[in-house]
Order: sequence, then C-alpha cells, then structure tokens
Amino acid sequence: MINSTSNKQVRRVAELVKKARARRKEDLYVVEGIRMCRELSPDQVEGLYVSESFLKESEHKEVLEGFSWELVSDQVMGVMADTKTPQGILALVRQKHYRLEEILDAGENPLIMVLETLQDPGNLGTILRAGEGAGITALVMDESTADIYNPKVIRSTMGSIYRVPFVYVEDLSKACLAMKEKGIRLFAAHLDGAVSYDEADYTGPCAFLIGNEARGLKDETAALSDCRVKIPMAGQVESLNAAVAASVLMFETARQRRRAGKK
Amino acid sequence: MINSTSNKQVRRVAELVKKARARRKEDLYVVEGIRMCRELSPDQVEGLYVSESFLKESEHKEVLEGFSWELVSDQVMGVMADTKTPQGILALVRQKHYRLEEILDAGENPLIMVLETLQDPGNLGTILRAGEGAGITALVMDESTADIYNPKVIRSTMGSIYRVPFVYVEDLSKACLAMKEKGIRLFAAHLDGAVSYDEADYTGPCAFLIGNEARGLKDETAALSDCRVKIPMAGQVESLNAAVAASVLMFETARQRRRAGKK
Repeated sequence: MINSTSNKQVRRVAELVKKARARRKEDLYVVEGIRMCRELSPDQVEGLYVSESFLKESEHKEVLEGFSWELVSDQVMGVMADTKTPQGILALVRQKHYRLEEILDAGENPLIMVLETLQDPGNLGTILRAGEGAGITALVMDESTADIYNPKVIRSTMGSIYRVPFVYVEDLSKACLAMKEKGIRLFAAHLDGAVSYDEADYTGPCAFLIGNEARGLKDETAALSDCRVKIPMAGQVESLNAAVAASVLMFETARQRRRAGKK
Repeated sequence: MINSTSNKQVRRVAELVKKARARRKEDLYVVEGIRMCRELSPDQVEGLYVSESFLKESEHKEVLEGFSWELVSDQVMGVMADTKTPQGILALVRQKHYRLEEILDAGENPLIMVLETLQDPGNLGTILRAGEGAGITALVMDESTADIYNPKVIRSTMGSIYRVPFVYVEDLSKACLAMKEKGIRLFAAHLDGAVSYDEADYTGPCAFLIGNEARGLKDETAALSDCRVKIPMAGQVESLNAAVAASVLMFETARQRRRAGKK
C-alpha cells in the first residue's frame, strides 16, 4: 500500500490532475469515481488506484475485475484526487486521438459542434454531455478552448467523453472550410443573426459555430458561416450561457431531424 | 476609509456573502461587480462599498452617482468579496418578497418554472437567466432548493435576479394545486415521460416541474402534473444537466408561442 504523499506515483497523479501540460506530455488523463471508472476497459487504463476505505466498504468492488490496481491510504487518495470527497477510485487513462478527416466522415448525417475559445470547463463538459444526448457526431475545438481532459470537464460529461469523437485543430478556419467542402452547412450562433434559429433547416449535414463566453465568435470565423442564427430573447437578457445556447441549437436540430424521419 | 479586516461592517458583509442564514436574518444580499451594481437604484441599496483601486482606476465611476458609499482598502475588499479577483465594487441589497398569489396572476400567459430541491447554485442562476430570455413569468421553488441569494447564483443570473419574480414555498404540492386552479397546465420533466417534449402544446398557460439533479422529481410531485414529458436522448446519455433540460423546455415553449403569435 502507498502511504506516503511524497511517493513518486502520487506526485505524478496529482500533477496529471492539475496540469494540462503534464497530461499532454504523458498522453494520459485522470478519471475519478465509480461511475466513470466502470465504463473503462483494461486496455485503456495505464494505472488504477483504490483507497483503503473503498476496498473495505464499497458495494461496487466488481469494477476492479480484470484490472490490476494499487492500494493507497485514504490520505493519499485525498492528495491525488481533484474532488473534495473522493469516491476512492481513480484511473489513469490513455488519451484518444481522432483525426479531423475521420471525424468529418463519421455518421450518416453529420451534426458537428465547433467551439472557438470556449473557456469554462463546466460549459465544455455540459456541451459534450448534452451533445451526445442530441446526437452530435463530433466536437471540433480550437487550441484556445479549455482542455477537454481537465477533471471538471470529465466529471460534467458523465461519460460522454468516452463516446463523442472530438479534435483540437490548429487552424479553425481551415477546419471550417474542410467541412464546407464536405457539404456541411455552417451555422454561426450570433447575437446579430438575421435568422431566428428555429427558422433554419438543420435536417441535412450541419455544424454550429459557438464562440467564447464573453466575446462570442471572432468576425473572421463568423464570416465563414453560411448563415448566422440568433436565439430570440425576451426581457433584458443579452445573451445565454454558452452551454445553454449550444443545447437549444442541438436539441432543435434533433427535433427537426426526428420530424423529418432522419437521424 | 476602512482599513481593518476586523472592522464590524467588513465582518458583516463577509458573513452575508457566506451564510444564507445571515442573509435571511438581515433580509439583505450582496451584489458584486460593475455590471450588477449598475442596475441598482439607491432605494434598493443598504450599503455600497468601493475599493481604493476602483476609485483610482475604474472607468465606470459613474455608477456611484446618486449613492452614498464607503471607501475600503483593496485588502478589505478582498476579504468581503466572494470572487477571487473582485472588481472593487460591492452592494448590500434589500431582498425582494413576492407572494405566490401575485406571481400566479402576473403576465397574460403564465410560463412558470417550478424547481424541486435543485441543489446547484450555478444551475439555479442559469435557469433564471435563460428563463428571462425565454419569457418565463415566474420561478417557484421549494425550501430545499439552493438559496437564490447565494453569490454564485447572483453572478450567473447576469441581472435576471432583479427582473424575474420568484418565490420559495413551504408546500410545493399546494402551490402546484393553486396553479391548476388558475388553469395553468403542469408539465413534469421526467425520464419516464410518455410524451416527447416537442409533441405537447405549451401555447397556453403552463408550468414545468424540474426535479433534483440526482434524483429527479419526487413521485408525489410528478403525480400532480397533467402530463409527463421527456426529452428524447441519443447515445448512452441517461439525463441532461438540470439547467440544460429546463432551457430546452423553456425555449421550445417560446418557439411554439412565437409560431402561434402568442407571447
């Protein structure tokens, strides 16, 4: 059992939890909790850590089957984990790498969310979770968007991180042009949109461009869109939270596609 | 100028920021930042605190016009504020008290969000903000729902807290029955809903019942609804974040009402 918080493995995990750079360098990320660990298979996992309390008391020890794992003291788990009250199980997981080309070709009828410089990890995780529910086929992000392997993102995805393909691209404009070449219509979520979002047709291949929480989309990115859509607003509200705006657009798409008998 | 962090006023504000009980006792809450303070009028405000840096450097000193205020050191502002990097302006504001009866009669065509034991302050604030944008006429909450005057809620409302009427009720079932008596149809957001949310008609007076993040609605509350609606889910997603689910329902209502030419 690992008892010491200065143990090399403990320091490694704590660093992977805290630093995007460490995650990138090691090509790993950290997953916490029973729910999120249950969906992993041994070939994805580089290391699995279990606390004394978990081993003594948990009703979910079956998640350990097939895995080799390391026992750590509760105090050590507290140092490794990102959550205040860790569930006592934590995995080092290998990052997935999708290529833009395969992402654009995935699914019969693409529905892609394109995020530009989205800063809040909670928003990113919420978009991924709601996106899976609405049937998106991929997530494309610029490199200034929050790190998808941030523990806060992982938690708020509730497992969608394992299932929705995603990619960070160096040049978002180039990625947008690649989509257009594939016949994917680009809709920019924009406060100055000329069209109310529910008056556009999303039953064919399409992508939504979502901008930064405070500044919205860059002009040059919005300019690449085929159509700017706005969500009409009552009261004195200027804009919606980015995850809410994205969700309204994604579920309107799902609604239209259901009605049209398309997936 | 207040220099000491042990000053009585400083301790009072810090307590109002941290404790719901102190806010209830004093019937006050704390608002931070220029954007949120700009919308206040002097008769709502019990005290206004401004940091040295704000007074020296801010380009928004016009917000102080008409108010009496107290100067505090930057260090003192840091102790009073809830945010890590305070904007240097903070107000003590009197709480508003709406009665259920007036709330039910407000607006021509009621659209009410009913929240049962919603725990996350960010979700509550997001629902209020998105709700104002979607045109809700009121928010009704049980007493186990997060405190709407929590600084995290206030921040995420972006000002909607000033404009959307809300009320906490001791007995949520009774409040639901009062709505039904007024001819307001109750829709329960429910994973076992028999009807897809976009197949119900929300153009008349209606209310949505939204349950706790982890457990959903209590059976006895769902039983009071006229109709259980579900949001169809692709992939392996079991449920949506509460604020996302509420927003999808609210904006579908706004969409239907726009189409029907009703507000």
